[in-house]
Amino acid sequence: MSPAKTFSEKLTEFRKKFPALKNKSYFNYGALGVLSEEALNEIDSTYRYVQEQGPFGPSMLKWLFQQIGATRQSFATAFGGAPENYALTTSVTDGCNIIFWGIDWQDGDNLITTNCEHIGVVGAIGQLARRQKLNVKHIDVSESVSDEQIITAIEKAIDERTRLVAISHVLWNTGRVLPVAPIQRLCNERAVRVLLDGAQSAGVIPLDFRQLDCDYYAITGHKWVCGPEGLAALYVRPGLAEELEPTFVGWRGVRIGEDGTISGWEPEATRFEVATAPFPLMPALRLALKAHDDFASQQERYDLVLRGVARLKDQLLKVNGLELAGDYHHKSSLVSFKMSAHDQKAVVKQLEEHNVLIRTIPQPDAIRASVHYFTSDEEIDALVEALRAIH
Amino acid sequence: MSPAKTFSEKLTEFRKKFPALKNKSYFNYGALGVLSEEALNEIDSTYRYVQEQGPFGPSMLKWLFQQIGATRQSFATAFGGAPENYALTTSVTDGCNIIFWGIDWQDGDNLITTNCEHIGVVGAIGQLARRQKLNVKHIDVSESVSDEQIITAIEKAIDERTRLVAISHVLWNTGRVLPVAPIQRLCNERAVRVLLDGAQSAGVIPLDFRQLDCDYYAITGHKWVCGPEGLAALYVRPGLAEELEPTFVGWRGVRIGEDGTISGWEPEATRFEVATAPFPLMPALRLALKAHDDFASQQERYDLVLRGVARLKDQLLKVNGLELAGDYHHKSSLVSFKMSAHDQKAVVKQLEEHNVLIRTIPQPDAIRASVHYFTSDEEIDALVEALRAIH
Repeated sequence: MSPAKTFSEKLTEFRKKFPALKNKSYFNYGALGVLSEEALNEIDSTYRYVQEQGPFGPSMLKWLFQQIGATRQSFATAFGGAPENYALTTSVTDGCNIIFWGIDWQDGDNLITTNCEHIGVVGAIGQLARRQKLNVKHIDVSESVSDEQIITAIEKAIDERTRLVAISHVLWNTGRVLPVAPIQRLCNERAVRVLLDGAQSAGVIPLDFRQLDCDYYAITGHKWVCGPEGLAALYVRPGLAEELEPTFVGWRGVRIGEDGTISGWEPEATRFEVATAPFPLMPALRLALKAHDDFASQQERYDLVLRGVARLKDQLLKVNGLELAGDYHHKSSLVSFKMSAHDQKAVVKQLEEHNVLIRTIPQPDAIRASVHYFTSDEEIDALVEALRAIH
Repeated sequence: MSPAKTFSEKLTEFRKKFPALKNKSYFNYGALGVLSEEALNEIDSTYRYVQEQGPFGPSMLKWLFQQIGATRQSFATAFGGAPENYALTTSVTDGCNIIFWGIDWQDGDNLITTNCEHIGVVGAIGQLARRQKLNVKHIDVSESVSDEQIITAIEKAIDERTRLVAISHVLWNTGRVLPVAPIQRLCNERAVRVLLDGAQSAGVIPLDFRQLDCDYYAITGHKWVCGPEGLAALYVRPGLAEELEPTFVGWRGVRIGEDGTISGWEPEATRFEVATAPFPLMPALRLALKAHDDFASQQERYDLVLRGVARLKDQLLKVNGLELAGDYHHKSSLVSFKMSAHDQKAVVKQLEEHNVLIRTIPQPDAIRASVHYFTSDEEIDALVEALRAIH
């Protein structure tokens, strides 16, 4: 018998599953996660399996629906609720748009959002508001504003024409965690729905949608979850799908009778699914979701993230001319900072030459590091070392 | 020197590229095309390449935009126009929905469609009409109605409130080719826009969007083109994108300034692109598009299709109790028929046991064979033979 592995050995072994982590320090999970060797093999073998079977026929049609069902089930296992509470989408943005356009807006209705949302959601809300003649209220969630002030500001902003509060769970720029639980409770009391953008939370912050009791939550498989791009999900609280209207409609959202006519919508959130998707990528996504839970619990992984983030922040604070762009105490996986004497994009390019992959964000003009639970101390040290070498 | 290959030898060699065609007769291109060994290898190697580089960073962000640009270019090379006239979408249905929701409809406007559209489009139009308070006029395109009668019916149906004619180029059920060129000319004269559903035409019928002078044309890469699922395109005639409104909006459709604010829409059709997609599948799609043109011209491939279709129809007509569900003279790649004494689904299942992959359609209740230019005489004979054995 071999001796029990230490946790550190277990982590080292886990990291070896990811080809992207060989000889590189990777800090871009908030943009694109890394695929494991197992997931890469699964992609290859599934595409080949489909061709060996012949891509379409009675058996493969059954297989295809099994893929859809199993993938919804995997999201439900990871984040709570039942499979039918998940619509499989293509991205967080796609999920948000389904909600934005799913509400039967009346001229002059309003929606509440923040001044720190991702550009995709900003664009979507701007266009929605222009076309549907809505008023948009922007809540200031800058670093100087406290959680209590944010909640109070939302409370004040809600009026009888407010239909939706659309905010990030974790701000993509500074990594601030918004107080979504009290915001959701407040909105429940005021009969206002809440859409949470989970791009920077799902897969890295402990999440159970039933426990959070949230209305709509958009997540993706390609960031912290470390699945392939193009597969994502929109959670819709049981019973709420029926008050929304599907907008983009296709064969996957409608119930089709034997005679080929439409007899209604598919149940719950699944009505928002549209048409053909990259089905052969689904098994790899499910493997990715499972690998995390096999490694450790959500809370254990989160603790590892916070430990890594603290290590990174502590070291960053010792780098000359570097300042954090977000509060030290944010309990997320994102660490934004600025090299004050430098062009941030130039810094990121220099870091790439040292095999440290990281990115800039535009507002604030800063560099953003994504720290996963399996980010190693060595990676963190390599980033700090490379920053120190910038001149 | 080896002697020049006969065309038949060239075709046999081409077919060997596709693992799905080994020991099988495949007739479901109208649902899902087959991937070549080369495309399968490209999928595998691209996913691995992305991981070896590290999926996101300054270099890979550049790579990602190159993928998007090159894929639009491949569609433009295959179907005419400029790359920016193509929005990369996820399916034909997705492309149709972009147009449906892109029009600034007024209560009581109307749109014209046919009584033989695909269920996805039927669902989309039904929901659009209900939410936007539109009238839908259905043109009868049944087998008994002539092309001239169809054109006359559309002409009569157009009134001052008609904003869109949405029809298939090739009907998915009977394989009828609608007279889209004269319909487009008629609509040009009446200032009505035309959306063509190209699910059963793109990749199999000669198509040049500039020559056809069409307004909007939705195509997909995963059927006749034989690329992976999840990649598709919407062609929008130069200049027409600006009169449409983007609906689902994300980072790919908006122009983003250095400061991270939105300064407008991306040019032409590209404004309709939304967010993250399965980018690593794009090189395989481009290979698929190129493989067809490398093999023969659009017209030569179409001639092969019509030859195969004629062979199939001629043989089917000799099968006891079998009747064609579409006119013998339809010049498309679809052949629908019915085994009158049988349950069509049961027939299709029995055929699968003989390694013949084919499908049913609901309206009319029939079996549909998709014949590609590389469908072999042996496949056609195997289908007919298997049908003869049904009892």
